[in-house]
Amino acid sequence: MTTSTHRTRYEALAQYVRDRIEQGAFQPGERLPSVRQMAELRQVSVTTVLEGYRRLEDWGLIAARPQSGYYVQSPPTAQCEVPRVMEPHPRTKVVGRSALIRDLLQEAQTGAQVPLGAAVLHPELLPQRMLARMQSKVLREKPAVALSYSFPPGHKGLRHQIARRLAMAGCAASADDIIITSGCTEALCISLGAVVRRGETVAIESPAYYALLEWLEVNGVHAHPVQTHPDTGMDLDALEEVLKSGSVQAVFVVPSFSNPLGSCMPPEAKERLAQLAARYETPVIEDDIYGELAFARERPPLVKGYDDGGWVMNCGSFSKVLSSGLRIGWAVPGRWYQEVLRRKRVTTMASDTAAQWALAEYLEHGGYDRHLRRLRRTLHDNTQRFIKHVFDAFPEGTRVTRPSGGFLLWIELPAGHNTTRLKEAALRHGISIGPGALFGLDGRYDHCLRLNTGVPWSERMAAAVHTLGALAKEQGEG
Amino acid sequence: MTTSTHRTRYEALAQYVRDRIEQGAFQPGERLPSVRQMAELRQVSVTTVLEGYRRLEDWGLIAARPQSGYYVQSPPTAQCEVPRVMEPHPRTKVVGRSALIRDLLQEAQTGAQVPLGAAVLHPELLPQRMLARMQSKVLREKPAVALSYSFPPGHKGLRHQIARRLAMAGCAASADDIIITSGCTEALCISLGAVVRRGETVAIESPAYYALLEWLEVNGVHAHPVQTHPDTGMDLDALEEVLKSGSVQAVFVVPSFSNPLGSCMPPEAKERLAQLAARYETPVIEDDIYGELAFARERPPLVKGYDDGGWVMNCGSFSKVLSSGLRIGWAVPGRWYQEVLRRKRVTTMASDTAAQWALAEYLEHGGYDRHLRRLRRTLHDNTQRFIKHVFDAFPEGTRVTRPSGGFLLWIELPAGHNTTRLKEAALRHGISIGPGALFGLDGRYDHCLRLNTGVPWSERMAAAVHTLGALAKEQGEG
Repeated sequence: MTTSTHRTRYEALAQYVRDRIEQGAFQPGERLPSVRQMAELRQVSVTTVLEGYRRLEDWGLIAARPQSGYYVQSPPTAQCEVPRVMEPHPRTKVVGRSALIRDLLQEAQTGAQVPLGAAVLHPELLPQRMLARMQSKVLREKPAVALSYSFPPGHKGLRHQIARRLAMAGCAASADDIIITSGCTEALCISLGAVVRRGETVAIESPAYYALLEWLEVNGVHAHPVQTHPDTGMDLDALEEVLKSGSVQAVFVVPSFSNPLGSCMPPEAKERLAQLAARYETPVIEDDIYGELAFARERPPLVKGYDDGGWVMNCGSFSKVLSSGLRIGWAVPGRWYQEVLRRKRVTTMASDTAAQWALAEYLEHGGYDRHLRRLRRTLHDNTQRFIKHVFDAFPEGTRVTRPSGGFLLWIELPAGHNTTRLKEAALRHGISIGPGALFGLDGRYDHCLRLNTGVPWSERMAAAVHTLGALAKEQGEG
Repeated sequence: MTTSTHRTRYEALAQYVRDRIEQGAFQPGERLPSVRQMAELRQVSVTTVLEGYRRLEDWGLIAARPQSGYYVQSPPTAQCEVPRVMEPHPRTKVVGRSALIRDLLQEAQTGAQVPLGAAVLHPELLPQRMLARMQSKVLREKPAVALSYSFPPGHKGLRHQIARRLAMAGCAASADDIIITSGCTEALCISLGAVVRRGETVAIESPAYYALLEWLEVNGVHAHPVQTHPDTGMDLDALEEVLKSGSVQAVFVVPSFSNPLGSCMPPEAKERLAQLAARYETPVIEDDIYGELAFARERPPLVKGYDDGGWVMNCGSFSKVLSSGLRIGWAVPGRWYQEVLRRKRVTTMASDTAAQWALAEYLEHGGYDRHLRRLRRTLHDNTQRFIKHVFDAFPEGTRVTRPSGGFLLWIELPAGHNTTRLKEAALRHGISIGPGALFGLDGRYDHCLRLNTGVPWSERMAAAVHTLGALAKEQGEG
């Protein structure tokens, strides 16, 4: 009860400050009252203020400056609202989106001049030289190892390093609980495959990651979309109703900086989700591929960290933080360890050896935390800039998310817009975007779009957003 | 009719010479009559003798020496017979072999002192330095490319090089027909997945590759084993009966140097198999992972080369010829191209980028054919040596295959032996082997074993074979 009261208090404080910011009482760039001052003003404890301020940081509304205090972030967020939560139809058969996905990836590959489509970090944001040097070192010094199979569960040194990172996220998995995979995609594929069969149903976020939707379609598995809030993620009351009814065999969720919404479930929601998994004996697949990319100082906790019974299957990868070309991810499959290991063997047998050794070396000696700090700052700045320009350029009534991590923005255009057509128009200007139809079932998100903000910021990006806005306005008038 | 008569003639000639060799009329090291002499002696055409001699080369019984003629290979093969063809039970449910596979891979990883278990080429037989140098070059010169996604169907330069190799094997596929995969395992996984579902049935060789059996088990697919000859592969009359009955949805075959038998289907059988696929509109998955490793001068043709209608799904990889650690293979899925491409996206999304670029460079400039010639010679010599020592050391009544390519030997011990127990005894002497239970359904091959001959030959290998023989004899007496 105490925890719950405390939670209410700091959330109330965060909401109070948020309202003031959105009403313009606290201006961008302005320093907030100090923690002590705020505690006196609002008659709450210093701890409550600290947690409330952290929540505001998570939302990207304020930022701490060392030895100085907390400042309101620009741009003002009052006039461009966050997208609405849409109530999805239950138990929807997933339908074809293959052509859209093929286009998205092809545009990323051939390099649209302004690559705002696929969720791909621009190489300039990565520690390219360091990673290349470390992989070359492995190849030079241990060619016999580097060019031979690394059979499942994969290179132990890398599994140790991953366990260390998981521990920092509050999860006590050991190297022996981890299976190295060929990217997060394989981790998701073999985790899902271990727990659902053709004709069964998975509860998913709405909107949802397109490759999940394609996996379900390819494997003849049904989707039960659960409404999902742009800030706080999947609605757990709605999920519990679904679990109670016994109509789903698994839950798939991106709890930290989801794709495409960017939502982040609060710690207490993650704890509840782990409890629901155990109570209803239903596996929860946690896709944590964006989890290290919090704008706040600390990464959010994992659902897996609250999982005592092994009902949560955690999946991750280095593709969104270090390199997508190395194809290295992992699964922590809990009670399905043996089954996922078997599936790893018959899906790809092993993952790239030199890449595993290079990553183990990089995580130990390469300055990963320094890289992450820099990357997160860049992505935070980019996100703010993109939001500002969307607000300036897009049609009235446009809504945009306020993610607290990752590099994706989700934009809801006024009803009647069609972003699959907008995508075609944008491509003619050398700009790729992710049309909403990629992420939705039954046409629900056809007026939405996703932007990849993982690019070096430049005037060209600003111009691209303005071009998109102009095209959208044209479409609205047409 | 002419073709068929010609085929009978050269096969008859090959069989005639084989009989003479096995009876000792032609001694190891002896030069055979010249092609012209033999044509006169047997009253056949020069072409018939040439094709007959090629067949004998394929069997590893004779070898051509430039400017000199054809010589009988040692060892004599008369006294250790080839394994018998066993008629399998039709439509067998695949059963658990996970623990055996886990052991096999683990022993390969931790490095049994004498690694005769998993089918892994020893790194000393690979162009390690050249491959490592080429991958380092890509990482140094193009880090941004090397560390980013290479979306399906994968690096075009590599697909071009693969198409060139396929053309040399008589298959006219272009780069646009090829999908790069993460090893042959992924190619098989997504090809099978595209054409069979849970509860359906695949016609397979007997004995069969263990990872295929595990894939079937994991995916709830039934196996219909078809009897398979150690020399000529799957019995196509038996297969046609099965196809006629309509009880299988796909055929899986390793037509060139199968695993574990080492059998190689003659060209005319491959042609017939492609015709059967089209006639019965049933996909044939062709696993060609060992195809480049013929002991004869030319690699055998592909089933895919006789496939006009796109019913053959060809799969291959560099894991058994260049490097298993790079995890690069390919699929040429014919009429299932789009479906296999989708499955590639949801299985691993992409394959290692730097590895793809390094392999493309190596295939173009690295001296691949020179490496292959050297490797094939080594593997041929090894095979002969292993056969000789098996003959010397194993219990009376032991049978052993005479593969004409690859690096696997299949040994049939007299009835009553159990190679799963033999494996345990061998491990205590630092020797790993592949017990027959890995490859069989319903205990049919529990008295057989597979040896990996892809190792640098040494007295230690000879001693290991003698240890295995002694252990088998002990077991026979116990």
